[in-house]
Amino acid sequence: IFPVFSKAPNPEVYLLSKHLPKQTDRLPIYMGEVGPVWLYPQSQLDCVVADPKKGSKMYGLKSYIEYQITPNSTNRPVNHRYKHFDWLYERLTEKFGCALPIPSLPDKQVTGRFEDEFIKMRMERLQAWMSRMCRHPVVSNSDVFQLFLTYKDEKDWKEGKRKAEKDETAGVMIFSYMDPEVPDLEPTEVEQRYETYSRFTRSMDDGVKDLHSVSHLHWKRCTGPLQKEYRHIGKALQNLSSVFNTSGYQGEATLTEALMTTGKIYEEIAEIVAGQPKKDLHYLMETNNEYKGLLGCFPDIIGVQKAAIEKVKDADRLVAMNKIAPQDKHNMAKNLSTMSYAFQAEMNHFHSNRIYDYNRVMQFYLQEQVKFYETIAEKLKQALSQYTNL
Amino acid sequence: IFPVFSKAPNPEVYLLSKHLPKQTDRLPIYMGEVGPVWLYPQSQLDCVVADPKKGSKMYGLKSYIEYQITPNSTNRPVNHRYKHFDWLYERLTEKFGCALPIPSLPDKQVTGRFEDEFIKMRMERLQAWMSRMCRHPVVSNSDVFQLFLTYKDEKDWKEGKRKAEKDETAGVMIFSYMDPEVPDLEPTEVEQRYETYSRFTRSMDDGVKDLHSVSHLHWKRCTGPLQKEYRHIGKALQNLSSVFNTSGYQGEATLTEALMTTGKIYEEIAEIVAGQPKKDLHYLMETNNEYKGLLGCFPDIIGVQKAAIEKVKDADRLVAMNKIAPQDKHNMAKNLSTMSYAFQAEMNHFHSNRIYDYNRVMQFYLQEQVKFYETIAEKLKQALSQYTNL
Repeated sequence: IFPVFSKAPNPEVYLLSKHLPKQTDRLPIYMGEVGPVWLYPQSQLDCVVADPKKGSKMYGLKSYIEYQITPNSTNRPVNHRYKHFDWLYERLTEKFGCALPIPSLPDKQVTGRFEDEFIKMRMERLQAWMSRMCRHPVVSNSDVFQLFLTYKDEKDWKEGKRKAEKDETAGVMIFSYMDPEVPDLEPTEVEQRYETYSRFTRSMDDGVKDLHSVSHLHWKRCTGPLQKEYRHIGKALQNLSSVFNTSGYQGEATLTEALMTTGKIYEEIAEIVAGQPKKDLHYLMETNNEYKGLLGCFPDIIGVQKAAIEKVKDADRLVAMNKIAPQDKHNMAKNLSTMSYAFQAEMNHFHSNRIYDYNRVMQFYLQEQVKFYETIAEKLKQALSQYTNL
Repeated sequence: IFPVFSKAPNPEVYLLSKHLPKQTDRLPIYMGEVGPVWLYPQSQLDCVVADPKKGSKMYGLKSYIEYQITPNSTNRPVNHRYKHFDWLYERLTEKFGCALPIPSLPDKQVTGRFEDEFIKMRMERLQAWMSRMCRHPVVSNSDVFQLFLTYKDEKDWKEGKRKAEKDETAGVMIFSYMDPEVPDLEPTEVEQRYETYSRFTRSMDDGVKDLHSVSHLHWKRCTGPLQKEYRHIGKALQNLSSVFNTSGYQGEATLTEALMTTGKIYEEIAEIVAGQPKKDLHYLMETNNEYKGLLGCFPDIIGVQKAAIEKVKDADRLVAMNKIAPQDKHNMAKNLSTMSYAFQAEMNHFHSNRIYDYNRVMQFYLQEQVKFYETIAEKLKQALSQYTNL
């Protein structure tokens, strides 16, 4: 099974834990080896999404699926329905969407919601989403996320929900709570960085989509024409074996048995080929899908930052026209610098996770592919051994 | 390389050589362990078709390809053009077509006759055809076949050709030269055997055609969509590697190099997949093709035999009506018995060759397939080793 849960990939964890300050409501940004980085917690939060149960409301008129989520911080399970995840997603988007990519939840679905296959897939995706959120030092540390994972009872949950819905540290306000412990940046310097990040996220988006589309094609080939073809080869060989068996010729048995075995093995290969994408390509595609979701958030984030740059650029003119005070301009530049540091910290978080995720998923994919080819070679060797050496 | 040449597969060789009589112009049929069998020579004739050379006639106005054929009996090469093979085919069909399946030559072709790929393929098929004819004890022992393989000079060839074209031991006449050293068969017994043989050859024809058509499909899939898809996967991974390389993030190198290697390996796999059918499926398809040719001859052979049965059945009536003498009827029954023995000998020859050929070609195919899957597994292991163990 693919290891969905993972330790924190960020090497900065160790660096930062050395001078970890007391926790405040400020979001600190540090200068790490790779540039600005978030403050990472000493122990990595994670959770297990499991045990989907069908529940009902209103005397059985409304059915729903409830998942059990167990965070490693408390080891105490809490229950949530999909619509609670959706509520959490809305809160996180409102609060952090300007600064951090909050990937969408797995799609809503109206029909087939209670089918096992669908529930399994949704749970797997909710797990991946939760693990990604847990891995994010800013998100995982937020009150609303902690509430979701550790609420004590229905009253606690209801109160927490109300409070979270009124949270004013949301949108661009989030930047005012960020605290880069480093000197301010020049707007031109900031602008250049955005260009680089913007180009990177767009190219990666294209790259990921291309890999995703060929994976999709390959999956369909394996479960469609290839499976059919190997089955057909299997049937054709078994059929030939049956025909040969009617010859009435002496000494026919070895060949007919060998052909029959070979035919059956090709039928097995058909099923192995068709079942393989679920075992390996699936995880590569899920990872690509997650990254498609993350990358889709960057244009908005970059848009917010670009607007701030334009504002600071315009500030000189406004000061000259006495429309704003020089102190206002100074504050705007300081805010822009903070935003830029936050974005850099976020990009560094993104990069380290990306390297970790793609290394892991490619390794897993290739391991499974090696096994796949070796299994087929082994099966064919078994068929081969049935023939007479002449 | 697939072993085109082969030793005689018929186990009866050894059996018969024990009481091998002096060679006569009669065609002896013996009772072997498997039933009636031809007299097999003590040493198996074979030949090598090689060294295609472009020749010309009429001051270069007409070009042709000449092949060198070297029989193992003389080890002296003779030269023949395709049209000589065609002449031989015509002679063998005229002489033996009523009793033995003489498979067609590889197709004539008007355009592209001088392209290397075509010449190579035609030579390979002429080789297979000649080897099959050499393996046939009746064909290989005939004057016309010996002439083709061992003529001494142009004069010898011309004289032999004239003689062969006038050969009167052709068509049904061939049966009068056959000499089954066994008791006569009853017509009803003969009829039953034909039913069995007829059903077998028709079913095998269907089976071979089915295997041939799925092989053709699979070949096209390997050189078409599959090659394209593996290339695309290779390109997508290399592209992702290039994008990652522009991140400017530290510690990126290992993953980008691993992805680049993996991408290149998938491009190699694309070429391996596309090149594989030529290396293995080709020989399975060629064998199936040869058998399609052989099996296509049986309806006519069976037709001749069935007509003879009807004639013998009708003979009682004709004797009663005094239209033929009882001795005539006796001769007709004797002839039918000979024809049946000849057909049984031929079917036994066919079966033993079939078992030999399919055992050999399936073994070869599976060996190459095992190598193919092992090679890919090895390549992917190489890619896998590039990733970081987390």
